[in-house]
Amino acid sequence: MIYFPRDRITIRERELSSLAFRILQTEDRARRGEFVTAHGTVQTPVFMNVATRAAIKGGVSAEDLERVHCQVALCNTYHLHLRPGSEIVREMGGLHGFMTWDHPILTDSGGFQLYSLAKLRKITEEGVSFSSHIDGRKFFMSPEESIRIQSNLGSDIAMAFDECVEIPSPHDYVEAACERTSRWLARCCDELDRLREKGSAVNQGQVLFGINQGATFRDLRLKHMEQIAKLDLPGYAVGGLAVGETTEEMYEVLDYLTPAMPQDKPRYLMGVGTPENIVEGVYRGIDFFDCVMPARNGRHARLYTSFGSINLKNEKFLRDERPIEEGCDCPVCKRYSRAYLRHLFKAEEILALRFGVLHNLWYYNHLMEDIRSAIEMGQFARFREEFYRKRENVDR
Amino acid sequence: MIYFPRDRITIRERELSSLAFRILQTEDRARRGEFVTAHGTVQTPVFMNVATRAAIKGGVSAEDLERVHCQVALCNTYHLHLRPGSEIVREMGGLHGFMTWDHPILTDSGGFQLYSLAKLRKITEEGVSFSSHIDGRKFFMSPEESIRIQSNLGSDIAMAFDECVEIPSPHDYVEAACERTSRWLARCCDELDRLREKGSAVNQGQVLFGINQGATFRDLRLKHMEQIAKLDLPGYAVGGLAVGETTEEMYEVLDYLTPAMPQDKPRYLMGVGTPENIVEGVYRGIDFFDCVMPARNGRHARLYTSFGSINLKNEKFLRDERPIEEGCDCPVCKRYSRAYLRHLFKAEEILALRFGVLHNLWYYNHLMEDIRSAIEMGQFARFREEFYRKRENVDR
Repeated sequence: MIYFPRDRITIRERELSSLAFRILQTEDRARRGEFVTAHGTVQTPVFMNVATRAAIKGGVSAEDLERVHCQVALCNTYHLHLRPGSEIVREMGGLHGFMTWDHPILTDSGGFQLYSLAKLRKITEEGVSFSSHIDGRKFFMSPEESIRIQSNLGSDIAMAFDECVEIPSPHDYVEAACERTSRWLARCCDELDRLREKGSAVNQGQVLFGINQGATFRDLRLKHMEQIAKLDLPGYAVGGLAVGETTEEMYEVLDYLTPAMPQDKPRYLMGVGTPENIVEGVYRGIDFFDCVMPARNGRHARLYTSFGSINLKNEKFLRDERPIEEGCDCPVCKRYSRAYLRHLFKAEEILALRFGVLHNLWYYNHLMEDIRSAIEMGQFARFREEFYRKRENVDR
Repeated sequence: MIYFPRDRITIRERELSSLAFRILQTEDRARRGEFVTAHGTVQTPVFMNVATRAAIKGGVSAEDLERVHCQVALCNTYHLHLRPGSEIVREMGGLHGFMTWDHPILTDSGGFQLYSLAKLRKITEEGVSFSSHIDGRKFFMSPEESIRIQSNLGSDIAMAFDECVEIPSPHDYVEAACERTSRWLARCCDELDRLREKGSAVNQGQVLFGINQGATFRDLRLKHMEQIAKLDLPGYAVGGLAVGETTEEMYEVLDYLTPAMPQDKPRYLMGVGTPENIVEGVYRGIDFFDCVMPARNGRHARLYTSFGSINLKNEKFLRDERPIEEGCDCPVCKRYSRAYLRHLFKAEEILALRFGVLHNLWYYNHLMEDIRSAIEMGQFARFREEFYRKRENVDR
């Protein structure tokens, strides 16, 4: 028996792994599923809301996340390792206790931030040495270290520590990175097993997802997927996309990759993307998504609607008494006018950022609800058509 | 008959003025009262929450203000005149409609901001010409213009357009400024009457408070008070304090001034102050307060408790699982730890600002609730002693 925090679930570990993901309905390659975690069940397809440093940028709190129907918060190993440090978070009851979010949490491994943020990065077989982007302090991150940090953070889903490569990169280099990512994945699994056996983890129900790499090389993507699928992990992610390739190249990777991914495990397309990307990802069999885009755009007055996005700073909204989108039930649209929101953005009030982020996260989470309903009713193909048709309307 | 927005109150104008302020209880000079406005009754003594540009700085929304028990929002004529312009606010239903705050609103006249913010200020009998602190655009503000703007904003309480002087300033200069402020007050009254008779105001129930000036000169303060009291306005403010004089000088002004103010009208001490200042103001017969301090301090991690303030950035809170103040019922203390809040401040998350402001506004509003209860029970003297006694405790 393993014990899950907060007396919520007590279940044999073996059972957990076999029960964890259940596909309820499919329509062509799109899947409607449920993923059980130590902090509740996730309805998929799902968009995870990015709370980088244990908070959503823009002044959005844990209770706000509940209000915008967030299912999974995604936090950042790299950022939390630098500040406040994972030991502090562990002492405060892990991320669930620290940020008072009693729902599922996924932590990334830090691999992507080492690629995108860290300075003076040096990669060896052992791991990655780097300097903090905040103050230049020197750190070393290995697969074991990443797992130990994520164990301290106590997320429900930990991500494997991988090597993310630029697109384009030479075939040889990408192949070597894939091989290393496979060896690192085995080390991640060993470390998680060791911590679990020791019984010292904040969240004994924490599971590990593997990450597929291979840039846009079909042979490497498929070979790497085959390698990591053998580990029979509770979930698999597609990493290293949305880093420079075209949208068409990304869809092409998904076209050949998802059929080669385990059918009975959730599939997570990391760091993606626009509403269009998400609809296309679901269409190609993806179950989990995350992206900073809705929050970042929200902070810059770019707001999502089913007719496409609008820029609230535009002069034409000066006297617009309508909400961002008519009929939207989000906490912002239910109370405030475009004219007021535009004023807040122009006056550079922090409240503008908060409202922008709240609306956009609601939009994304609500889009996923619509997608799930559509698949349940066997109407996803129609939903997809309708989704694009609405966007042809240019008068917003 | 005059008509109040939102069908809430229909009352003859004369009755309104006589009914507007009711003193329920006194204890020495401290008063427990009620002030009726077109958007509801204000329980006094009251601390008004400063929403400068139709929003509280720090990402705090109208519903947040309701959650922290704000009674009156104070908005800024100068800032809203520059951006978005009062005509826009008027078209959106005045400030109540624009910011969706269906409770009392007070607007200041812009006089203080011309003194503290505007550039190239030039004062004549007609009014003040100045350049915007935002983009240098040239503006002219007169008593009439200030009232027209406030009428467009539709506040429940408009403030007279006054000339605020530096402390110290020569007696002659202050005397001339007082005389001008009296003449400007008469012009404000005339303009408000004109607009009311025209029937075109957004808020036909808007009333005007006069402002007493005179720096720290006893003779000028008393003479000016005598002049403006003759106008029998619905309320009187003490302006031009907390601008450079010592706390003792401020208390001394209140000591001789409040007995000379109309007993049956509310008294508003503008821009004041610390919790201690407020307790001392109430003790000296003040009914209304406002100050940017709780919000500004909240954004800088300085949080109020009944034991004094704490700086949450302090290292000692790194692992502190307690709320900001044990027993505090504010939305922040009910859910989050000092350790988490400290992390948010150190990581410069906007959420930190929001939480800091929410807690501090709650603290101030709750302090006023305690003060009101104390006066009701004839226990204000004891409350005041206890208030200081708690602050002697140094271990927070």
